[in-house]
Amino acid sequence: MEELLVKSAVGSWKQVIGRIDQGFLEANDEKLQKQVAPGKNRLLYLLGHLTAVHDRMFPLLGIGERLHPELDEAYISNPDRTLPDPVSVADLKKAWSEVNSGLIAAFEKLTPAEWLLKHTAVSEEDFAKDPSRNRISILLSRTNHASFHAGQAVLAK
Amino acid sequence: MEELLVKSAVGSWKQVIGRIDQGFLEANDEKLQKQVAPGKNRLLYLLGHLTAVHDRMFPLLGIGERLHPELDEAYISNPDRTLPDPVSVADLKKAWSEVNSGLIAAFEKLTPAEWLLKHTAVSEEDFAKDPSRNRISILLSRTNHASFHAGQAVLAK
Repeated sequence: MEELLVKSAVGSWKQVIGRIDQGFLEANDEKLQKQVAPGKNRLLYLLGHLTAVHDRMFPLLGIGERLHPELDEAYISNPDRTLPDPVSVADLKKAWSEVNSGLIAAFEKLTPAEWLLKHTAVSEEDFAKDPSRNRISILLSRTNHASFHAGQAVLAK
Repeated sequence: MEELLVKSAVGSWKQVIGRIDQGFLEANDEKLQKQVAPGKNRLLYLLGHLTAVHDRMFPLLGIGERLHPELDEAYISNPDRTLPDPVSVADLKKAWSEVNSGLIAAFEKLTPAEWLLKHTAVSEEDFAKDPSRNRISILLSRTNHASFHAGQAVLAK
């Protein structure tokens, strides 16, 4: 029963990432400079932001080392158009694909019991008090985060 | 173990709905007429759309009768500004709250085994071939759908 529940959660992640993949990887450089609404984030910023946030999931879930910490300053710590884009569009698209395929490979190796272990940003004490601060909750909240920005990305024209 | 997995999925739904709640219920009539981006959906349309889609979850999950089928024509079957808004803003906010509190009450009664039963839009034969077409997958996909539109709603100004 628990295998099927975990499979549903990982399946939901894959579905969201798959849809974002399609949109972003098809977008050319000009399209990626479009904003989702006047004065709001560029598509390129959202791509960088999601790549950096997902890259942080490796250490947060305790499933590996980060691949692209060079994206954080421009795409997490600062709003869009504060800093120059740190890498080329081609390299950012490559980073996005690397990070997400690395995550999915790691997700598929975790057992249900391992999904229920604590994530690395919570202490043993706090986790003992609240066992919902586990890996699967991070997976679900990052899936929602990706959906949130996917909804914005489709508005760019 | 399966209780904790289900609790995480229901918790993720509650978190997303709670955030949308805050934004929509605080918005006055004038704010709800704003579009998320020029020429795109009004906030009011998104509120109607999410209410109608969530109301459809009662029969889809086999957990109850619909409360507000009168919203479908304007907020699911047709794009924004095609039909007049079928109910007042106050009634729509009330419907949104009723639907979501009814769903949460029903969710909290389902056992893990019941979450893994088929939803009502899949046949017994198809479900036997693909057991992931269950209630929990609907919950996760509707959570993502709500997040998708929540990302758009925050852009309205």
